[in-house]
Amino acid sequence: MTLTRKDFLRGTAALGIAAPALATPAIAQNRRELKMASAWVKNFPGFGTAAERFAKRITDMTDGGLSVRVYAAGELVPPFEVHDAVSTGAADLYHGVEFWWQGKSPAFNFFTTTPFGLTPVEMKSWVYYGGGQELWDELAANYNVKSFLVGNPGVQMGGWFRKEINSLEDFKGIRMRMGGFGGEVISRVGATAASIPGSEVFQALQSGTIDATEWVGPWNDAAKGFQQVAKFYYYPGWHEPSSNVSAGINLDVWNSLSNSEQEIIRIAARAENDDMQAEFHANNGASLARLQGNDGVKLRRYGDDILMALGKVSREVVREAAEKDAFTKKVYDSYMAFHADARTTTETSDLAFAQARAMVFNQQG
Amino acid sequence: MTLTRKDFLRGTAALGIAAPALATPAIAQNRRELKMASAWVKNFPGFGTAAERFAKRITDMTDGGLSVRVYAAGELVPPFEVHDAVSTGAADLYHGVEFWWQGKSPAFNFFTTTPFGLTPVEMKSWVYYGGGQELWDELAANYNVKSFLVGNPGVQMGGWFRKEINSLEDFKGIRMRMGGFGGEVISRVGATAASIPGSEVFQALQSGTIDATEWVGPWNDAAKGFQQVAKFYYYPGWHEPSSNVSAGINLDVWNSLSNSEQEIIRIAARAENDDMQAEFHANNGASLARLQGNDGVKLRRYGDDILMALGKVSREVVREAAEKDAFTKKVYDSYMAFHADARTTTETSDLAFAQARAMVFNQQG
Repeated sequence: MTLTRKDFLRGTAALGIAAPALATPAIAQNRRELKMASAWVKNFPGFGTAAERFAKRITDMTDGGLSVRVYAAGELVPPFEVHDAVSTGAADLYHGVEFWWQGKSPAFNFFTTTPFGLTPVEMKSWVYYGGGQELWDELAANYNVKSFLVGNPGVQMGGWFRKEINSLEDFKGIRMRMGGFGGEVISRVGATAASIPGSEVFQALQSGTIDATEWVGPWNDAAKGFQQVAKFYYYPGWHEPSSNVSAGINLDVWNSLSNSEQEIIRIAARAENDDMQAEFHANNGASLARLQGNDGVKLRRYGDDILMALGKVSREVVREAAEKDAFTKKVYDSYMAFHADARTTTETSDLAFAQARAMVFNQQG
Repeated sequence: MTLTRKDFLRGTAALGIAAPALATPAIAQNRRELKMASAWVKNFPGFGTAAERFAKRITDMTDGGLSVRVYAAGELVPPFEVHDAVSTGAADLYHGVEFWWQGKSPAFNFFTTTPFGLTPVEMKSWVYYGGGQELWDELAANYNVKSFLVGNPGVQMGGWFRKEINSLEDFKGIRMRMGGFGGEVISRVGATAASIPGSEVFQALQSGTIDATEWVGPWNDAAKGFQQVAKFYYYPGWHEPSSNVSAGINLDVWNSLSNSEQEIIRIAARAENDDMQAEFHANNGASLARLQGNDGVKLRRYGDDILMALGKVSREVVREAAEKDAFTKKVYDSYMAFHADARTTTETSDLAFAQARAMVFNQQG
């Protein structure tokens, strides 16, 4: 789910919320309440619910000593301002996606995902054991924030198309809703990247204003109802292989916590990074079975010529973004060096196993 | 790393430890010490260190209120008896691998891994969101234990071979160190499953007593030194796609804990499930680069005919094991129903993305 320019301009409206309203936090004795500004609509499946679960776990582990209260998108601040809110202290914590703050620095992109970039397991390996967290801490400290990975929805799907796309020629000329790096990439291979707010995508696809759209994966996409207006569902989500969600805490608040409280937040984040992907995989499996069944959706893999063209341009787009400033270049260099070794491991483990298993089960039935 | 019959018979000796020695736990005021019996040699990279990290996190999050003391393999009980020790209350917690207790019930296998079974992300999805944990609780309660996933080393490698294996014919007749389901599978396709304890594998491969061995992945395998005596390194690890590590707690101890203490243990387990795979992926990447570089190891993918034969027989072996008792059949049915949906999701997300990325980077350089 990339965000388009209009999503950014519209702020809360993009997610269908009328107006921000300030809430008054309760103050209890011997308990500290932390305000978490979530970038998600309340109960938004997989994302909003993950923010609630993360908050509840911190509250439960501290027996309420640190009580985290979640403010849904727009309740405290608009969703794209949650990082600012934590930076200034208007909120203690946020739950959102780093590439939404790419206007502050393009380096933030690398802590979410990049086209043809790291997979979920490679991403956590880089952040935890490959120097990623140290670079992220350096970046976030400029905004008085410390951030953590708190999950991902798995490799996304490629998107919904009203017509079948058989070659790069068919891909050229289509009008597809896609923002960020992905939008730049498709525009360079001849498609048109359309800027349609998330709340209006269904209608735009239904009316033919756009020919195609990406969103997340089977679970979230089915809830949007795209299968009612487009029958071709393409994979893989080359533009967002990991899409990490992150939580950040105001550095002054962080430094005021005890060692055990800091450890509880750090470990709750790591548990979420495990959990969210599991919830998505389970729900995606069931949703995909339904979409292919009663809903008659045609599952299609992007052709090699399309993937090769998108891959070539993706590498250029990401490299160009990295050239914008020295710090972003430093993050890019670290990310790409890790990418080189991690790729071979993925190819000889996860990829080769899944290929072998697909061969066995698809051919033997 | 499957264990052979001799590993089981030898107990601690298999891992190179002389004799168990009982330690005396310290008793401190207002603090409770929990004894964790680890199945690993102290500081065994990735596995033993994960047990230590898990214990330290629980201790740190409770500010020492629950202080978890780790006893390495053989210090409290031999490694394959850690489940018994927790069951009887001789230890409070264990850190090991469920398929080691398959003598109690074949159902335990499904909470570690099965040949051509669930991948790491599918495994956690099944356990957390597909009914797996409930079945596991039912099984473990028979032994007065509650168990959790606490990590995995990723999809393993297929093994080290002294000679290149070009077809199923070459695979037939080789003598390979492999235990468990995997050993049964290779023996049915014409290889000989050799029972060599872990501590003697290097020497057996060097002397030619065996032609091949599986172990874990690049990080652990390089430490064993297999690259000095065998040059062909095959993938994928069809026999152990997930190899989950687990921690269990005595049910009486569990029930005596406060809600916040229970939540701290549950969340620390989930964080470990995230963390261990990340540590392995990062170290496997660096190790594999070294193995292919200076060590001159030849990386080879098993041929399709070998994988198809192994796949067919694996499905039979696992199905036969499931028929042994009604509860194991129930677990098998749940696992395989989840496997069917999860596989499609993996094929359209992780697999398709990794394939596309490999094509782009390997062809474009």
